[in-house]
Amino acid sequence: MKKLSASSSVTAAHGFRADGIAAGIKPSGKKDLALIVSDVPANVAAVFTRNQVKAAPVKLDMEHVKSGKARAIVANSGNANACTGHDGMIHARAMATGVARRLKCPVEQVLVCSTGRIGVNMPIVKIGAGIKKLVKSVSRQGAHAAALAIMTSDSVPKECAVRVGKFHVGGIAKGAGMIQPDMATMLSFITTDAAIPRAALQRALRTAVDQSFNRITVDGDMSTNDTVICLANGLAGKVSMPAFQEALNFVCLELAKMIVKDGEGVSRFVTVNIHNAASDRDAEIAARSVCNSVLVKTSWCGGDPNWGRILDALGYSRARVKEDLVDIFYDGVPAVRRGMPAKTPVAKLKKIVAQPVFTIDIQLHLGRGRCTMHTCDLTEKYVEFNKGE
Amino acid sequence: MKKLSASSSVTAAHGFRADGIAAGIKPSGKKDLALIVSDVPANVAAVFTRNQVKAAPVKLDMEHVKSGKARAIVANSGNANACTGHDGMIHARAMATGVARRLKCPVEQVLVCSTGRIGVNMPIVKIGAGIKKLVKSVSRQGAHAAALAIMTSDSVPKECAVRVGKFHVGGIAKGAGMIQPDMATMLSFITTDAAIPRAALQRALRTAVDQSFNRITVDGDMSTNDTVICLANGLAGKVSMPAFQEALNFVCLELAKMIVKDGEGVSRFVTVNIHNAASDRDAEIAARSVCNSVLVKTSWCGGDPNWGRILDALGYSRARVKEDLVDIFYDGVPAVRRGMPAKTPVAKLKKIVAQPVFTIDIQLHLGRGRCTMHTCDLTEKYVEFNKGE
Repeated sequence: MKKLSASSSVTAAHGFRADGIAAGIKPSGKKDLALIVSDVPANVAAVFTRNQVKAAPVKLDMEHVKSGKARAIVANSGNANACTGHDGMIHARAMATGVARRLKCPVEQVLVCSTGRIGVNMPIVKIGAGIKKLVKSVSRQGAHAAALAIMTSDSVPKECAVRVGKFHVGGIAKGAGMIQPDMATMLSFITTDAAIPRAALQRALRTAVDQSFNRITVDGDMSTNDTVICLANGLAGKVSMPAFQEALNFVCLELAKMIVKDGEGVSRFVTVNIHNAASDRDAEIAARSVCNSVLVKTSWCGGDPNWGRILDALGYSRARVKEDLVDIFYDGVPAVRRGMPAKTPVAKLKKIVAQPVFTIDIQLHLGRGRCTMHTCDLTEKYVEFNKGE
Repeated sequence: MKKLSASSSVTAAHGFRADGIAAGIKPSGKKDLALIVSDVPANVAAVFTRNQVKAAPVKLDMEHVKSGKARAIVANSGNANACTGHDGMIHARAMATGVARRLKCPVEQVLVCSTGRIGVNMPIVKIGAGIKKLVKSVSRQGAHAAALAIMTSDSVPKECAVRVGKFHVGGIAKGAGMIQPDMATMLSFITTDAAIPRAALQRALRTAVDQSFNRITVDGDMSTNDTVICLANGLAGKVSMPAFQEALNFVCLELAKMIVKDGEGVSRFVTVNIHNAASDRDAEIAARSVCNSVLVKTSWCGGDPNWGRILDALGYSRARVKEDLVDIFYDGVPAVRRGMPAKTPVAKLKKIVAQPVFTIDIQLHLGRGRCTMHTCDLTEKYVEFNKGE
């Protein structure tokens, strides 16, 4: 597996073109409309938010992916098209129709994503004009512009691409995580020229998402718009499924980590490994409890190796925990042995937590379940950013 | 029901004495050891943390309350006696024994509570000397000193007392909630001279706690030491059970609200009512999801009526929610009708969220379940306080 120039991202694979422009949705005048096109109908897989409150484009896409094929993804930032009722559905459908008519493909082959303010009607005339331009301007060189156009409060675009033998997997993502003023929406679009049957593509994407986007947590909030889409146009022919899965896992995990690292105000990137939980499910519950604990996250921000808060978060999680079996390590250095303070000097642990990146290993000694989760600290800057006015 | 001087609290009821002193556990030299004594053996009820990681005194008390009777509660701040292993149990038992020997009562009739730093051995010699003093100094006038001695990062003592006809219910509490640097431990001790059979007392306390301490959330973290104890010594004779329940509910809710309001950095006290959920359980799940959402809490801190984040938190809760049925009101003013923005000008909603106290009513239109929860905003000051060094 070879890492390619990140900016090639969604156009690294053969037969994909992209672009991003400023269509006038964002008051700032920044890029806000992206289009990704496959020259031929691609097999499509998608994973959507499990939030019961779903934005209009999510509802539309859930219908469209049933066709199994897609030619294009049109995505805008600046407006989430959520909590917009009947008008919202009409506008999402209009975006798909606008692209489909010009690409001369069935409307079901166009997927729509939106991110930004909620409860505000879409400026659909501006978007229509933007689509008209984009359909002409998409190119092999436009991936970076597309990555820019889906950003909301992201500070950097998130792009990644790899080549494995004859096939490519590349993707872009946006995720403000901590700083999104309205919704912590996460979007990711991945393209590949590998020929993967649709059912296998869906399984592969679900596996990759479960180990990447579903293993990061910034503030524990799940948005109404979260969407990951993968298009496989088959132009590189049949490939080894394990090799494809590995490449897809890699691209998804890289993009997911970029989302955590880009949270405004983040000063620590922390990986939490749970070992030997009673089950994998228990391991995930325990990891989430630690990673979402406001007290744990604020202690990291102060460089405080407060393992007491970690033990506390393990204890109130619904995962099985036996206090006198728990070991906790910071970058491999023992802090807790069998539920009690290890002999390590606090100064040594403080030095680890003072670093911008560290790992916490939690050994539960109960079974064979395990889980890795990536998260960040909670800082004053985060609050400042999210408090609105 | 008549509200009494708050500072009488745990000695408002006949036959109770209390005091609090500085025993040298806190480096600051502030009061850190409290004793509450009933002149006669009282029926005892208690509710403990459900955290699987439990401090030594919690484990001890769970045994002691089985005896059904208690003469005294000894409580210290400055050290949580948690994650202290075998030594911790010995120290907790030594505290109970020290009091029991001097009161000439069975050791099972003494309950022990600790709050403060975790993973540090108790300065048991100092505590022993303090107990010796306290047993002599407890008096009808010492309730306020006891309330002061259980404080950790609380900025004010939490005290409340009421009289209903011939009987009294009074209590003290400590709960740093947002600011406790180690654990958000919540302790509350309630005394009454009403004669309540033990089983009925336990039921009444459980009911009162479920509607008060279990209906507040500051940061979603549940401590290893949380304990509520109620002593009923019967000196006022038999009373009407509904009247007792009402008084107990009142005292618990008042103390619980004081805990939320006292969180350092708190600038908003918010009551969230869920109406017409599919069930009471669903209502509670929905309320917790909204009250613990970091994005919702930070928006309040900025005075931003960000109902989109509330809808989002409802949607990702496990409670049943139908987006197009949801109404949201701020102090009775509609913000959302049937899942979409109401016609209320944003300025009007902003004025409400700018207030230090307001109420959010969420109507789910699904069934008859309901829940009220009290919470607060999340501010930069909270992070500053909790980040340790």
